[in-house]
Amino acid sequence: MNTLNEQLLLPHRVVLASASPRRTALLDQVQLSHEVLPSSIDEEAIRLQYFDHYDEYVEHLAEAKAKQVFDQNQDALVIGADTVVVLDGKILEKPKHKDEAFEMLSRLSGRTHSVFTATALCAPQYEDLQTVETKVTFRSMSEAEIHKYIDSGSPMDKAGAYGIQDDYGALFVVGVEGCYYNVVGLSLSNLFLMLQSYAVGNAA
Amino acid sequence: MNTLNEQLLLPHRVVLASASPRRTALLDQVQLSHEVLPSSIDEEAIRLQYFDHYDEYVEHLAEAKAKQVFDQNQDALVIGADTVVVLDGKILEKPKHKDEAFEMLSRLSGRTHSVFTATALCAPQYEDLQTVETKVTFRSMSEAEIHKYIDSGSPMDKAGAYGIQDDYGALFVVGVEGCYYNVVGLSLSNLFLMLQSYAVGNAA
Repeated sequence: MNTLNEQLLLPHRVVLASASPRRTALLDQVQLSHEVLPSSIDEEAIRLQYFDHYDEYVEHLAEAKAKQVFDQNQDALVIGADTVVVLDGKILEKPKHKDEAFEMLSRLSGRTHSVFTATALCAPQYEDLQTVETKVTFRSMSEAEIHKYIDSGSPMDKAGAYGIQDDYGALFVVGVEGCYYNVVGLSLSNLFLMLQSYAVGNAA
Repeated sequence: MNTLNEQLLLPHRVVLASASPRRTALLDQVQLSHEVLPSSIDEEAIRLQYFDHYDEYVEHLAEAKAKQVFDQNQDALVIGADTVVVLDGKILEKPKHKDEAFEMLSRLSGRTHSVFTATALCAPQYEDLQTVETKVTFRSMSEAEIHKYIDSGSPMDKAGAYGIQDDYGALFVVGVEGCYYNVVGLSLSNLFLMLQSYAVGNAA
């Protein structure tokens, strides 16, 4: 397969405005050649203003990341993204310590929660912002199992204290409803459609 | 993480009665140590008898594979599995040639189909057989896109002419409903519960 850039006739440098190694791996998986230039936005300011509204929060973060990197790279097509894990209307962030990871995983156990990823595109005379929701269902986990997972280290750098794609995640996620890759950090099928719309508009 | 064998206190050799490299990779992903001993059952006989009833077909195949390998390895815990792709009540098999792959992918384009994986466990004084369904939705694909995917070679050895886990699959599968890994070839979370039930019964 050619690169996705060639296939879609993307005219510009593609820049991922995210430091997430998982997002880079996803773009590599679908052969979208890209540079990685993480933004340096003040996430805390957006957090204070929007944290109680997860939909606005995730959108503002994705948009702010893309816009800031585009401001410094105005010849590029910039992709910004942010992902939140939401249970009972509240965002579960990255756990600060093992006890918090245990508390999060105990709450997620045996229930269905939502994962929202917002994706923003910024390019010359072009902006797009779309949010995709995926529902994720965990089976019931024992306390021993949760401790074992936390001891693996994997939960500590992940929102909601789990990675659907890691060794252990595969064993307790009984089902998803929606795009699987959206839970990893980017809905690849939706990003494809966003890039296609951009490319078609650009060629017109 | 220890091996899953240690974690679940599995007392026996674990044998995968399947030649599928994807199933071996899934078991490796969750650190289930296992040997691979493909069965040599007469799939064509089962095909002739059950092909019009996809649920019975997939169950008989999974069970026959596990039983045959267990007969020759009676000290082992044997896992047999089979996966079918079903659209409008009919099984889509591996395409025999590129035209058939094109026809299958054209039919799947823009629609939701089902994937059933049956998993059979055979061990001393123990049998279990469970089938998991996952629904998969494709976005609409252009003819050019379908041809490009077929030219990648990936569709030709896969039921339904696609692999949800391959580079291209990630771009046209907009959503699943159920276990993602079930579409790859084994529901890992359900297999975990099957192995746990086996181990608990064995320890009692």
